[in-house]
Amino acid sequence: MVYFDNAATSFPKPDVVYESVMKAMKEYGANPGRSGHKLALRLGREIFETRELLANLFNIKNPMNLIFTFNCTESLNIAIKGILEKGDHVITTSMEHNSVLRPIKAMERQGVEITIVKGDSAGRINPKDIEKSIKKNTKLIITTHISNLTGTIMPIEEIGKITKKKGIYFLVDAAQSAGVYPIDVEKMNIDMLAFPGHKGLLGPQGTGGLYIREGLDVRELSQGGTGSVSYELEQPNILPDRYESGTLNGPGIIGLGAGVKYIMEKGMDSIRKHEEELTMHFIEEITKINNVKVYGPLNVEEQGAVVSINIGNQDSSEISYILDQSYNIEVRPGIHCAPIAHETMGTLEQGTVRFSFGPFNTHEEIELGIKAIREISNQL
Amino acid sequence: MVYFDNAATSFPKPDVVYESVMKAMKEYGANPGRSGHKLALRLGREIFETRELLANLFNIKNPMNLIFTFNCTESLNIAIKGILEKGDHVITTSMEHNSVLRPIKAMERQGVEITIVKGDSAGRINPKDIEKSIKKNTKLIITTHISNLTGTIMPIEEIGKITKKKGIYFLVDAAQSAGVYPIDVEKMNIDMLAFPGHKGLLGPQGTGGLYIREGLDVRELSQGGTGSVSYELEQPNILPDRYESGTLNGPGIIGLGAGVKYIMEKGMDSIRKHEEELTMHFIEEITKINNVKVYGPLNVEEQGAVVSINIGNQDSSEISYILDQSYNIEVRPGIHCAPIAHETMGTLEQGTVRFSFGPFNTHEEIELGIKAIREISNQL
Repeated sequence: MVYFDNAATSFPKPDVVYESVMKAMKEYGANPGRSGHKLALRLGREIFETRELLANLFNIKNPMNLIFTFNCTESLNIAIKGILEKGDHVITTSMEHNSVLRPIKAMERQGVEITIVKGDSAGRINPKDIEKSIKKNTKLIITTHISNLTGTIMPIEEIGKITKKKGIYFLVDAAQSAGVYPIDVEKMNIDMLAFPGHKGLLGPQGTGGLYIREGLDVRELSQGGTGSVSYELEQPNILPDRYESGTLNGPGIIGLGAGVKYIMEKGMDSIRKHEEELTMHFIEEITKINNVKVYGPLNVEEQGAVVSINIGNQDSSEISYILDQSYNIEVRPGIHCAPIAHETMGTLEQGTVRFSFGPFNTHEEIELGIKAIREISNQL
Repeated sequence: MVYFDNAATSFPKPDVVYESVMKAMKEYGANPGRSGHKLALRLGREIFETRELLANLFNIKNPMNLIFTFNCTESLNIAIKGILEKGDHVITTSMEHNSVLRPIKAMERQGVEITIVKGDSAGRINPKDIEKSIKKNTKLIITTHISNLTGTIMPIEEIGKITKKKGIYFLVDAAQSAGVYPIDVEKMNIDMLAFPGHKGLLGPQGTGGLYIREGLDVRELSQGGTGSVSYELEQPNILPDRYESGTLNGPGIIGLGAGVKYIMEKGMDSIRKHEEELTMHFIEEITKINNVKVYGPLNVEEQGAVVSINIGNQDSSEISYILDQSYNIEVRPGIHCAPIAHETMGTLEQGTVRFSFGPFNTHEEIELGIKAIREISNQL
């Protein structure tokens, strides 16, 4: 079986991730931050270690400014709803995932104004178009780091310069980049960074995180028990507790920590280089095949390990079905939860067949993928 | 090591839970409901099986009315914030956890009226007091099924009769009961049932659920990608998708399913009976010890496997520390995220030392606990 669906969830995980999850569940599966006994303290300590690891990875000064969530979608909801208010203006791009678009659409009904800056035919966003859209009431700019449809890498450092200059908050959706591409919240002027644990960071599902810049007053989405100031009926105002109500996914976070450690030991650059090689070769070969349309910038300086294609006018679901059934190759078809990005690409009806590569994919697998596309294209 | 902190999180889990989580992670750790390939479909199918198992357990007619969440706190936040609006009145009890109290306090700032019905000295709630509190604008009644402080079992069936008669929505917090005590949403007239996966249901952390009665229009707390109607910028209105944005905790849910299956095979009644025997014997013996104050109804008809105690005027954290360090017995001290319940018990300053038992606790462990309390009490 060849798994090319790493943009949905990375698979497999490093062995150390499986082992860490199991160890946490079996040996110290208590409730962190609640009780004071040995098991609870051990889990609490190791969760803090994961916080530190992630803080290091993203150059976050204080690990307490990094909160754990259920998934990247929850992180984005907290960031968007916690900062925007009636009368505010928010700018985002046509390349966003529904995890950004749907929350801002919900805020629109509460009186928030939206501007969506359109990408070009390869999904590129021009920072100047963002700058031009800024109005007096612009409070927040949201952009994905890497498009989940076309793999297009966005110029977040340049956008961060604009938001800093203009005093606007900058929220980055790192769903497709965290763990693979360098992210420095200081250098890039990122005020809030949302990321999943189960994609590039190689952790288990049920994990995600949000960085909130020190001093930024983001309203919490949920309230509940935090294991801190338990005598108070008001949600505590301290970080990370304010945003971490109820029991965390302890073993999941431990597994995420193991994933981050694996990346650091292996070297994020070397993982990225490997993915770039696979992506580059894949793009080079499939663009030569008759009838195959490949979306995105088509070069690894501008495109991550996500490649969307179509074969002729064939329905993307049908192609994926053939890949799965006849070739045992697992990809994702259809509309990739990014409707305006599909509009931008002109693929809202056909969808796309998305190939997304991870650290455990091999050159041999890429060859199998290329061969399969060639054969399917010939047969149609 | 003796683990008496099952009310915080059950530990250990049945072996089949560990195995199921590992199998899901290693063999089909894809993204359910996103792609259409074999791995994704398998995970999707097994997640649906867990939905069915839980629906059976709680007598929910349509499994699609059961949504998966991060934890019970998220479930409660969705239920509370999704139903209450400015001008509404909500009734709850003094025995609630902060996962109920803090969200309703947040809603109070948005113009929701709150009445908190007080429990008696054993934490019992009189349904008549609830009925007397009903006003014209009462929209929702929330009560815990079992207090996490005193183990007091609430008369939810009687309260359900009142809410049905009066046309008021009924939300039950089953944090301490799901998986151990029978819950029948039809018979008990429960409109919304919130539960954690990692306590009595013996699943992993990072899992929880919320039942929403058919036809009840509960606003979603978050929006995002649902893998359904992906071309739409509006959150889909179908269940469970409306409330399940972003990637679910796939392996966690599979583990939860294994926990539920284990309970069904073992028999929920036999698990409860075992816990009742442990609890009864524990209460009988420790109430005989000098200087020990035990809270709650002190009989298993009215009290679950949660027993809060204090020894003299000693700080509860100190007692817990001694239990942990000298006896290797793990309990939870302090304020158990239920401030008004502590007020009701008069333990807001001292806190309590909470013993909570699970299916894997043994009679021998109970004897060790009793012996430890006796010795500590003698030494003080």
